[in-house]
Amino acid sequence: MGTSSILDGNRFDTHSLGALDPAARALVERRMNTLGTGYRLFYRNPVLAVRGLGTRLYDAEGREYLDAYNNVASVGHCNPAVVEAVTKQLNTLATHSRYLQDGIVEYSERLLQTFPESLNRVMYTNSGSESNDLALRVARHHTGGTGIVVTSEAYHGTTASCAEVSPSDGGGGLPDHIIAVHPPNSYRHEGESSVAEVFAARVTRAFETLCERGHEPAALLVDSIFSSDGVFPVDGALQAAFAAARAFGALVIADEVQPGFARVGSAFWGFARDHAVPDLVTLGKPMGNGVPVAGMVADSEILDAFGQDVPYFNTFGGSSVPVAAAAAVLNEIRERRLFENAENIGAIVRAGMEELAADFPQIGDIRSAGLYFGVELVADPETREPGTAFAADLINACRESGLLISVCGPTSSTLKIRPMLTYTAEDAELLVERLGDALNVAARVARAGVA
Amino acid sequence: MGTSSILDGNRFDTHSLGALDPAARALVERRMNTLGTGYRLFYRNPVLAVRGLGTRLYDAEGREYLDAYNNVASVGHCNPAVVEAVTKQLNTLATHSRYLQDGIVEYSERLLQTFPESLNRVMYTNSGSESNDLALRVARHHTGGTGIVVTSEAYHGTTASCAEVSPSDGGGGLPDHIIAVHPPNSYRHEGESSVAEVFAARVTRAFETLCERGHEPAALLVDSIFSSDGVFPVDGALQAAFAAARAFGALVIADEVQPGFARVGSAFWGFARDHAVPDLVTLGKPMGNGVPVAGMVADSEILDAFGQDVPYFNTFGGSSVPVAAAAAVLNEIRERRLFENAENIGAIVRAGMEELAADFPQIGDIRSAGLYFGVELVADPETREPGTAFAADLINACRESGLLISVCGPTSSTLKIRPMLTYTAEDAELLVERLGDALNVAARVARAGVA
Repeated sequence: MGTSSILDGNRFDTHSLGALDPAARALVERRMNTLGTGYRLFYRNPVLAVRGLGTRLYDAEGREYLDAYNNVASVGHCNPAVVEAVTKQLNTLATHSRYLQDGIVEYSERLLQTFPESLNRVMYTNSGSESNDLALRVARHHTGGTGIVVTSEAYHGTTASCAEVSPSDGGGGLPDHIIAVHPPNSYRHEGESSVAEVFAARVTRAFETLCERGHEPAALLVDSIFSSDGVFPVDGALQAAFAAARAFGALVIADEVQPGFARVGSAFWGFARDHAVPDLVTLGKPMGNGVPVAGMVADSEILDAFGQDVPYFNTFGGSSVPVAAAAAVLNEIRERRLFENAENIGAIVRAGMEELAADFPQIGDIRSAGLYFGVELVADPETREPGTAFAADLINACRESGLLISVCGPTSSTLKIRPMLTYTAEDAELLVERLGDALNVAARVARAGVA
Repeated sequence: MGTSSILDGNRFDTHSLGALDPAARALVERRMNTLGTGYRLFYRNPVLAVRGLGTRLYDAEGREYLDAYNNVASVGHCNPAVVEAVTKQLNTLATHSRYLQDGIVEYSERLLQTFPESLNRVMYTNSGSESNDLALRVARHHTGGTGIVVTSEAYHGTTASCAEVSPSDGGGGLPDHIIAVHPPNSYRHEGESSVAEVFAARVTRAFETLCERGHEPAALLVDSIFSSDGVFPVDGALQAAFAAARAFGALVIADEVQPGFARVGSAFWGFARDHAVPDLVTLGKPMGNGVPVAGMVADSEILDAFGQDVPYFNTFGGSSVPVAAAAAVLNEIRERRLFENAENIGAIVRAGMEELAADFPQIGDIRSAGLYFGVELVADPETREPGTAFAADLINACRESGLLISVCGPTSSTLKIRPMLTYTAEDAELLVERLGDALNVAARVARAGVA
């Protein structure tokens, strides 16, 4: 574990600067002379993005890409309804939550309607990182404990507190009060027990170990679809794990930054797909379609004591413009019934991928929920040896064929594909077509390498 | 120390709900039923904000307020140039920094031109909290230490790591590896040594104590104008304190979230006003005039090792829309020479306040730099007993007279006044006039209380 897969699996190597065309090379050099070294670019040949529209991104040369990765612009690049609402707000008022405003209250009421009854309070932040950081503060305040259980390739954000619980961040080993367990891996599962049971048993064992080490349990923190672990929508896994955590008095935090806002199709939230109810839910990425806005939803019985002890203010969080963006996104999802679209279009993409799998033995497993896909690649279908090199070739071939996707998982061998919720059937077919083209290219490269 | 002044000094007491008019009361109740208990509203009679324009804010009844507090909309509410730039970007592209984009590179180059040569790299975040959290991570990575020195009423943000270094956050005592020192208080200073020397000696003593406790020094973290401590632009204080910290191998982090972006008039940054050069600088609030955007500027010699070890990605930070907002704000400040305006208009406001001080003995001290004011109120000019109750009456009287300001400092007795950089001379005179009106009202209330 801890191979920096989420951030480095699709990384431009700055030693390859010389291979870029002169314009891109000049821009990368200027970028390297102004931005910190921590920044990474996607692809062997980075995309110089200049325009987005609907499901497409365009580069400086006018080349069109089908965007199947950028889950921020979840209701489409430059969505007209969102642009209009944000523009209107920019021309009206942009101020913070210490003044009364209608917008934040109206949006909060509508947002909370998408949650189970017990999740009845919201707090606003500016990023998934701030949301997870806040949820960890609340969990530690509520339980008095510090022990956290996460999954082995989890990524929960960039703050000091979030980095500590993000094994895939590459920042080194975990501190003593944090334990990472393997996700519910339906592809690499053995034995009599169900995948969900095995996962719950790992959670139980982790909390036992924390107790043995003298760390009181505070929380189980999991992405509701195990995004950076490789995408595992496993029936019953969340339910079983949540129960296991609660047996130790720990709170359950569902990180919905990636799976949330109707992406999983059958439900508005990843946890709801599994009919599980967490104590705290963190929101982010697609919430404002490109305007920074994020938040945390909580059970008031858990949150009230924290709020009484710790005054909370976030200058931008819950301010006028981010709230206007979020309200427009929620409107789009509900009015256009994009969760149904995610389910229907997701089925078309999945069927196409299954056809490709029949032709390409490198496709070991296809996991999906709605419009969230993890396609695990293998070097050998018998041994299931991870297809890391093939995956790297494939995502770069996709980029050249006009399809933007990326990789995840401990060996960077699982394609992570997140088409926009607004995909049409034609978009879905084009995705499969371009993925097929790229598979042909990558397979040719692999054969040439062997020969 | 630690009286929660920054967040609670101007707090609406929810027990007073019954005193509000029915519409405001209904909205506050809906707010309480949706937002977490940690949220606070300003004023005994909260302002229901519906519109902003230039230097003015308007409430639901059409009442106009001169905004002298909201330093996010620093180039004016609904600034047309900023609105136009953001609208254009919203209609073009909103995506993240893993794709190449011109905008982030161009803005970074222009932003870095406002810094001393050694501060030559920037990283983008979504809030001052994320910026300070990142700076603390970098300082700890660079030094291998954990010890931090801050000021006694410091407020640096809401993440777990920032809350730990924010004594005014009200979250309880400081951990063993963090020490708070009193700010350079030019009003309550005694002895032979200069205010700056005394402050530097406190910093030295704090780092000595950290070493005695076995905590390696990591950083001195200070707001460059000591905002929440009560606003202390003291010549030489930053220079002396930075040198004291460096003698222990600690890095110096200048928190420019409040004083930055030309507010102090004579310089673009608070630290530059004192001709001091920090190692890391954190940016926030006014950077995007209401669009969430923030960042950290650093010396590449310090930042490079961190960036090589820790891949950094921030979904919204450095993405298209926040960068477009920030670029437009920087344009406005430079093209309209708003730093000169801050200096000139600041002088008018200051002169008016000094006239008021001649009439109102409650004004104990006026501290300012450019358009940043701390006006310390006293119950007794001889003993300098803090005028906490008077300050509370005064800011509420200001609100009723159509002037928005707030309070800061350990006893919530210092008015914190931050007019927009776009104030005209007429705005400055109106500020002084309304402050004078409110002083009369508050003085009458005080006399009635005594009688």
